[in-house]
Amino acid sequence: MNKEDYFLEKFIKPCTEICELFPLEVGDDCAVISSSKDVLVSTDSSIENRHFPKDLNPYFIAYRSVAIAASDVIAMGSYPAGYLLSISHPDPTDAWFKDFAHGIRDFNNLHKTKLVGGDLTKGSLNICVTVFGEVQKKILKRNAAEVNDDIYISNILGLGREGYKSFLDGDTSIPNQYIQPKLMTKKDVLHLNPLTNSAIDISDGFLLDLDRLCAASQKGAEISITNEILKTDLEDVVAGDDYILLFTANKSNREEIVKILPKSKIVGEIIEGTGLKIKNSLGKELNFDEFGWDSFKS
Amino acid sequence: MNKEDYFLEKFIKPCTEICELFPLEVGDDCAVISSSKDVLVSTDSSIENRHFPKDLNPYFIAYRSVAIAASDVIAMGSYPAGYLLSISHPDPTDAWFKDFAHGIRDFNNLHKTKLVGGDLTKGSLNICVTVFGEVQKKILKRNAAEVNDDIYISNILGLGREGYKSFLDGDTSIPNQYIQPKLMTKKDVLHLNPLTNSAIDISDGFLLDLDRLCAASQKGAEISITNEILKTDLEDVVAGDDYILLFTANKSNREEIVKILPKSKIVGEIIEGTGLKIKNSLGKELNFDEFGWDSFKS
Repeated sequence: MNKEDYFLEKFIKPCTEICELFPLEVGDDCAVISSSKDVLVSTDSSIENRHFPKDLNPYFIAYRSVAIAASDVIAMGSYPAGYLLSISHPDPTDAWFKDFAHGIRDFNNLHKTKLVGGDLTKGSLNICVTVFGEVQKKILKRNAAEVNDDIYISNILGLGREGYKSFLDGDTSIPNQYIQPKLMTKKDVLHLNPLTNSAIDISDGFLLDLDRLCAASQKGAEISITNEILKTDLEDVVAGDDYILLFTANKSNREEIVKILPKSKIVGEIIEGTGLKIKNSLGKELNFDEFGWDSFKS
Repeated sequence: MNKEDYFLEKFIKPCTEICELFPLEVGDDCAVISSSKDVLVSTDSSIENRHFPKDLNPYFIAYRSVAIAASDVIAMGSYPAGYLLSISHPDPTDAWFKDFAHGIRDFNNLHKTKLVGGDLTKGSLNICVTVFGEVQKKILKRNAAEVNDDIYISNILGLGREGYKSFLDGDTSIPNQYIQPKLMTKKDVLHLNPLTNSAIDISDGFLLDLDRLCAASQKGAEISITNEILKTDLEDVVAGDDYILLFTANKSNREEIVKILPKSKIVGEIIEGTGLKIKNSLGKELNFDEFGWDSFKS
């Protein structure tokens, strides 16, 4: 057996599982999706030294890579039902794959999701994850924000940034939103879905992702940055790596939303026009050179 | 606009197209698959210096990466209806993306397929392609070969190897199966589907892929390597990069199959037992140290 098949057979295949939605056992050239509903799909690459540091334990490489891909499906109002992995690795070992598979299994167990296929090839470390979720009540798009909508974040900003700092300090205790992003649960996603107008996940920075949502909706936003929405300081609004949900909803839904997501915060509202009007708690206007993370800035 | 969004907007988005099967316009966190049938899906990474050489024109990087991923869907009896791209690139430029997008458009036009979403991030050059195809009459699996089935290859072996040699010699004239793999047409795939029992695409080497099919089917194979199935010499049976179809079919279907695929060859038959019995045209047994390509051998 060649090495590629060896690792796939020994470590990846035991993490896979068939179910009604993915009925074909792993081992062919494709997986099969069998759904009576429309299916959301997103693909996302996590790359060593870009999305995770070189010395991160493979357990967290697996967990984090799948979680941040799954976050895109949650951002559109569904939950991750299953996913494919395309792994490239310069020099895999049994020890590496053992930890990696452990991360996969823990993510799957927590989120009741399945690994349904994958491949492995030699190359610099790159975990490409393709996630599927069945469309629920509605698809939450970026372009459907309405004027006067409340703008919500599902949790405070800066937890990913704080987690990254802890990791750099040698502290890998959990919870840590950077190395093991906590996502919204399936139950919360399903309850929230019909109450929201538009959504995006915060990955590249709160301001940047809000700007994308506003641009897609051809609307503006007026937001207030108060200490209660920040974990550490003002840099949290551009730091990214939050993997929480940014969404907009009609003001009439406030009571229901806070019941579903007690940690969520209203940070402002959608207005006519374009662009972001950002104020601090004293009403003073804030200006930012950068709204978030750019892959191509070093 | 950050650089990631710039390249996606300028070069990738114009290559995308909505249709009944992929009804959501690009620009959200996910694509949507809307099918009343089951859907095949495969994900495949093409990596610089592993799957394609460093100085390959981006036109061919795009074409080849999508083609070899699409080959997996064809191997299961369908055709590529649409796909997602996850591109990582160390330092993209307008010139690079212009050629890359040209390759995408040419592949899409020829195969009547659609790019339905993608992302871009900084990293070593890696094109991860996730391809979808609706299940047709049946799913061609590796595990369904029957004793006495004819074993077919859809074209001769070694065209990929020859194409690679031409490329190294500075000859990039077309046709070249390495830099621009020619796949089976949708029409041929659909006609062939009900006539075959099992299939796999030849990517890592004819013997290796046949061995995988036999192992999955818990059968053996007796094959005869004659000059008429080789482009150059005996190394063609282990060289890989063919991206042609290896399939098995009941002997009663010979006449129909040759009509659909006049270039196809019968190379042997499925037998009871396990493993490959390989003979040359004189009936002399041949032994091979390696059956094909192993990612993790350098």
